[in-house]
Amino acid sequence: MKSFGYAAKSAASPLNLFQFERREPGPRDVQIDILYCGVCHSDVHTARDEWGGAVYPVVTGHEIVGRVTRVGAEVTRFKEGDLAGVGCMVDSCRHCINCDDGLEQYCDHGFTGTYNSPDKRSGGVTYGGYSTSIVVDDHFVLRMPEKLDPAAAAPLLCAGITTYSPLREWGVGKGHKVGVVGLGGLGHMGVKLAHAMGAHVVLFTTSPGKTQDALRLGADEVVVSRDEDAMAAHAGTFHFILNTVAAPHNLDPFLSLLRRDGTMTLVGAPAEPHPSPTVFNLIFKRRRLAGSLIGGIAETQEMLDFCAEHGIVSDIELIPIHQINEAWDRMVKSDVKYRFVIDMASLKDEVKSL
Amino acid sequence: MKSFGYAAKSAASPLNLFQFERREPGPRDVQIDILYCGVCHSDVHTARDEWGGAVYPVVTGHEIVGRVTRVGAEVTRFKEGDLAGVGCMVDSCRHCINCDDGLEQYCDHGFTGTYNSPDKRSGGVTYGGYSTSIVVDDHFVLRMPEKLDPAAAAPLLCAGITTYSPLREWGVGKGHKVGVVGLGGLGHMGVKLAHAMGAHVVLFTTSPGKTQDALRLGADEVVVSRDEDAMAAHAGTFHFILNTVAAPHNLDPFLSLLRRDGTMTLVGAPAEPHPSPTVFNLIFKRRRLAGSLIGGIAETQEMLDFCAEHGIVSDIELIPIHQINEAWDRMVKSDVKYRFVIDMASLKDEVKSL
Repeated sequence: MKSFGYAAKSAASPLNLFQFERREPGPRDVQIDILYCGVCHSDVHTARDEWGGAVYPVVTGHEIVGRVTRVGAEVTRFKEGDLAGVGCMVDSCRHCINCDDGLEQYCDHGFTGTYNSPDKRSGGVTYGGYSTSIVVDDHFVLRMPEKLDPAAAAPLLCAGITTYSPLREWGVGKGHKVGVVGLGGLGHMGVKLAHAMGAHVVLFTTSPGKTQDALRLGADEVVVSRDEDAMAAHAGTFHFILNTVAAPHNLDPFLSLLRRDGTMTLVGAPAEPHPSPTVFNLIFKRRRLAGSLIGGIAETQEMLDFCAEHGIVSDIELIPIHQINEAWDRMVKSDVKYRFVIDMASLKDEVKSL
Repeated sequence: MKSFGYAAKSAASPLNLFQFERREPGPRDVQIDILYCGVCHSDVHTARDEWGGAVYPVVTGHEIVGRVTRVGAEVTRFKEGDLAGVGCMVDSCRHCINCDDGLEQYCDHGFTGTYNSPDKRSGGVTYGGYSTSIVVDDHFVLRMPEKLDPAAAAPLLCAGITTYSPLREWGVGKGHKVGVVGLGGLGHMGVKLAHAMGAHVVLFTTSPGKTQDALRLGADEVVVSRDEDAMAAHAGTFHFILNTVAAPHNLDPFLSLLRRDGTMTLVGAPAEPHPSPTVFNLIFKRRRLAGSLIGGIAETQEMLDFCAEHGIVSDIELIPIHQINEAWDRMVKSDVKYRFVIDMASLKDEVKSL
């Protein structure tokens, strides 16, 4: 079935209109008319081949919200007209220990990414959500709560679950002091979610200008991480720190803020490694440095329901798709509060005018 | 009370006979006639000021086994003639959250090390177990099981607890695949303890010549860590890895052996940092890199009782104290199987001959 998207034809080229085929829905497939798609830093890394492995043309986008337009005969969880979401994964092996545990993101055979992954069903690579429609196996389709603004809810599918999952994994809740490093797309979700979970939230930023915004979003305190005295005042007091900064930076000033048995989880993936953390910082309070990758499908649904219950969505700037190249450039400079979301009506209008 | 030890007078000087005063036992003190003292790499780091902070003369030694010769009026757990042990700590604040949790090694105010720590009771710095006797608050004195060889049991007080604590902390037991990196003083205890806990133990070494010894000590498999194919065969399969290597080395080949949610704990403290681990290795299986420092007093007693139950002691080379400088040089070259222990009768003989 004919579909349109915005694609990068090479690492250096801007995104432009691209026509391609989506598979016809099989018995367990859900076909979705895309209404909104969030813009993630990973989109840029992939399209510009900064992580390697790009197969062009690349159609990015893995924060997808839309309406179900068709379902396969065996699909029972969705029907035409339902509001549906698709995140970073569209398939996995379904039988390894990690898939069995509902943690498809750690599939031993590698999950199928929503874009630029080998497509086991149709051949070639998968095309993501900067497009008019998508067809996805129902296991990987989320129910979007109708009470959330669908445009602002789109970033929950990646930025939301990426921050929700480690907060849950490490048991964040009332009585916990939680740090969030960086106030970008991920960080602003981390602040909102940790606050909703009942934690005392401290936002760390290099930009004093973000203080008022962080407090508005739910932070109880803001610390400018370049202020050594302000950092020292928090030494050894944090149960958990969620570090969302992908740029290489010194981890030690944050590790030293953890109390005994505290954990700092990294969710940003730098192209170049961080400076090596000091082993003494890990040894002397039995601290842990961990990583976390998005979240499983069941946990993503749990996160969406949690957000509906607490009225949490992303702070977004809604853009028409022809502004995507400019938006990417602004995002790379952290000039967005806090997530761009593409209004896919703009793409459909562009297609109609062809 | 007059005591004799072997001391370093400066970072560059060898250890030589040194006379000093021990405090008279207070109401909660235990006075111990030292029979054996294990030789730990930390002794060399401290005496040669490789970690900074050495206050000379330095009398090292924190793997101490001896007989109780006097107890204070309020001491109920020990009596004259008991076999007693002293490890890395002789005091702590006793009222912070970590002391309250029985984890005095993480005392918020800093525990008092058995040597080269400010001595809150007598002033100056503490003098360790390369000496004829020691006086220690009873809370920090361990009951040594009589059924263990006291010389070979001495290294349990540091090498034993340093490896036992993280194995327990991370729940190692039957059905677990556990790696131990390095077959030295710490590593050979890690192999014995993890084996006794019921785990499937894989020893990683750079020295193929250590294979038979590792199998004898309790390893189920031995992998030469420079053999990339042998390493790749174990990718993603370990529940836990205990890394005992203090020399800076690449952590990534070991991190990539962990399964999802697996942890590698570092117990060696390199003077220079390890190369920075790849964040992708942490993120893609939600792995953890942790540190661990010795163990609390209650856990040390638990470890000694566990070792008595399983007949576990260290493999040692017993030396007279006048060979200590040569022993240090050999230990630095990893030329010891697997721990030197000083027979303190040799020091007492030397003192008698003065």
